[in-house]
Amino acid sequence: MSVDGPSAKPVHRPDHPQSVGYTRAKRAVFFDQGQPLALEAGGRLSPVEIEYETYGRLSPSKDNAILICHALTGDAHAAGWDQSPEGPLRGYRKDKPGWWDEVIGPGKPVDTRRFFVICANVLGSCYGSTGPMSLNPATGRPYGLSFPVVTVGDWAKTSFLLLDRLGIDSLYAVVGGSMGGQQALEMALDWPDRVRRLIILSAAGRITAQGLSFNSVARHSIAGDPNFNGGDYYGGPPPLKGLAAARMLAHITYLSEESMGCKFGRRLQDKNTPDFTLTGVEFEVESYLKHQGESFVRRYDANSYLYITRAMDYYDAAVWGEGDMVKAASRILARTLVVSFSSDWLFPPELCRELVAAMCRSGRPVTYVDVPSRYGHDAFLVETETVSRLLDSFLKN
Amino acid sequence: MSVDGPSAKPVHRPDHPQSVGYTRAKRAVFFDQGQPLALEAGGRLSPVEIEYETYGRLSPSKDNAILICHALTGDAHAAGWDQSPEGPLRGYRKDKPGWWDEVIGPGKPVDTRRFFVICANVLGSCYGSTGPMSLNPATGRPYGLSFPVVTVGDWAKTSFLLLDRLGIDSLYAVVGGSMGGQQALEMALDWPDRVRRLIILSAAGRITAQGLSFNSVARHSIAGDPNFNGGDYYGGPPPLKGLAAARMLAHITYLSEESMGCKFGRRLQDKNTPDFTLTGVEFEVESYLKHQGESFVRRYDANSYLYITRAMDYYDAAVWGEGDMVKAASRILARTLVVSFSSDWLFPPELCRELVAAMCRSGRPVTYVDVPSRYGHDAFLVETETVSRLLDSFLKN
Repeated sequence: MSVDGPSAKPVHRPDHPQSVGYTRAKRAVFFDQGQPLALEAGGRLSPVEIEYETYGRLSPSKDNAILICHALTGDAHAAGWDQSPEGPLRGYRKDKPGWWDEVIGPGKPVDTRRFFVICANVLGSCYGSTGPMSLNPATGRPYGLSFPVVTVGDWAKTSFLLLDRLGIDSLYAVVGGSMGGQQALEMALDWPDRVRRLIILSAAGRITAQGLSFNSVARHSIAGDPNFNGGDYYGGPPPLKGLAAARMLAHITYLSEESMGCKFGRRLQDKNTPDFTLTGVEFEVESYLKHQGESFVRRYDANSYLYITRAMDYYDAAVWGEGDMVKAASRILARTLVVSFSSDWLFPPELCRELVAAMCRSGRPVTYVDVPSRYGHDAFLVETETVSRLLDSFLKN
Repeated sequence: MSVDGPSAKPVHRPDHPQSVGYTRAKRAVFFDQGQPLALEAGGRLSPVEIEYETYGRLSPSKDNAILICHALTGDAHAAGWDQSPEGPLRGYRKDKPGWWDEVIGPGKPVDTRRFFVICANVLGSCYGSTGPMSLNPATGRPYGLSFPVVTVGDWAKTSFLLLDRLGIDSLYAVVGGSMGGQQALEMALDWPDRVRRLIILSAAGRITAQGLSFNSVARHSIAGDPNFNGGDYYGGPPPLKGLAAARMLAHITYLSEESMGCKFGRRLQDKNTPDFTLTGVEFEVESYLKHQGESFVRRYDANSYLYITRAMDYYDAAVWGEGDMVKAASRILARTLVVSFSSDWLFPPELCRELVAAMCRSGRPVTYVDVPSRYGHDAFLVETETVSRLLDSFLKN
């Protein structure tokens, strides 16, 4: 996701009463003895480490937990100011709080005075949970592409394992945007009576053929990079060019045509007349994309990009209804809020409404809001005020 | 452009009364003695060869010429069955007529019983006109990136030179789709009294920031290919992976989300359950894109892709009005038809209407049609019946 918004966001320093303050990554290890985790796609994994953060306090009755699910290239550091020794490895910055600090904190919509908030990094990621960059205990070397294929279903499963470990029987709410919305939905489908509220932002039961296509070209770019070496690049230079191209492409899909037009238009980059360069930067928007690509490759692992986009591809909530979304939706027991954004073309409102309509037809309680916004898919992170109001009222209810 | 349509198109064999029959590429050479061509971006080029085809006969008064302008990866072989010795080099197939055979021929909308039809390959292309693949006479080696930057303005200029050579003072009409529409527009702006009718399909006065972005990522993919070698790859393996990625990406923009959904949906490729492969093909749409990428690299030169996408980037018709599209449009003397397609998101209807509105405001005669279609940008090649009716009535008038 891009981080640019309609205006400067308030950054609450660690000592601000609305900040969760300093945070540290935690780690839960599963399947480190005996049986490995049996994954949905058939693979097996042992051990399974999940990196997570928590904010606020679990109530004595353990009924106040909210799980936050991160997006494609996201991490467990959702709020506050990281102090983990691993922080710099993850790319966490000292001058920036977690990725959803605007909505998580004392007195914020996800109010840590009231709720115990958990955010866990997904399996397959490069931000602390076991993934292709992790050491394969059988070889002592990074897994690379020998890492098993993981699915959104596996993320739901490992999230429930983490909840077990924390002694939490059912969630007050699970909240996720984009890919995180898929995970949130999957949890409500997989184990309905453990999820009391479900909040899905900019997500749907499955991505479109166009979404599959963008992911496919992104992976093609990565796998085509000369440094890719079948995913076994950890001892040498990583496939940075391919990963940068994948990220540049993804960024186009996060913005709307309108927001790109407003933000950059056809303006040249720091000049009044073009240089007439074929592969250099001429337009502001090129400079922006180039910057996005370059900064991304410093913080993300190419193999993780392959695994996680594939998990998004495979995800189809209708599987729970043998292909019938209505039948699938009838499993959900959570009170549900679905939010789409008018200019989102990665998870367009019509696609989000497929899930909403399925819930309506199956008689499940669902609140649906389509937010008018020009910020495209990024709107779920950018339209903080609107999202805050929606979260606040839905969580208070 | 993709070639798949709503239904099978009639293919008129060479002996069909509505076919232009067998065709041969022609060649016009300019600037081969003395002064080189001074290009808009400042470069110089000598000699300048233009490959073109003609169908029908020029009238004694030379007032019946229609120029067809091709799209991004198009060529001069617009109609009929190629018999040129160069044909196989260009990738022209023996079992397929030219790319717009449906509309050009005796009794077709661009009626060769009445009109003398010309289609010329643009400068910078790899289909016969001088481009980066051509030999630089100064070195005896292919130009590669030492080829000068060309612009849509240069294409207009060389088209007029070709018309001069053919003794044609003014065109009955110039017709182009997508990038060809930009060239057609430029000709009507550059030399207004030489263009009596202007037909623009799926094009506009300039591309959007989103369009710039897609072109930028495509070039990034090509230039990032290990075989690219600064464009000097003609003695070795060409940058096929990068070019394939560029083409796959472009293909996504040629189809609409709806047409992709209808055509492929989320169906798996020749299987009922996924193989769980990260970089292989799982979904039909992946197979389609892969095929598009692979077949494209057999027929197209990566350097040409850089030059021609850059020309599209730079093009801004408003330059004729010092940034004011209305002022620019006031130059046009041609009767104009602009056609957009409802689901085109590369040249979306709103963008096409910018030009139409400018013409209206400058008091220039313009007919505008927005065709409801689910075929996206490709619609201008796919919605043959509608396009034929529009061309037919506008050209008859």
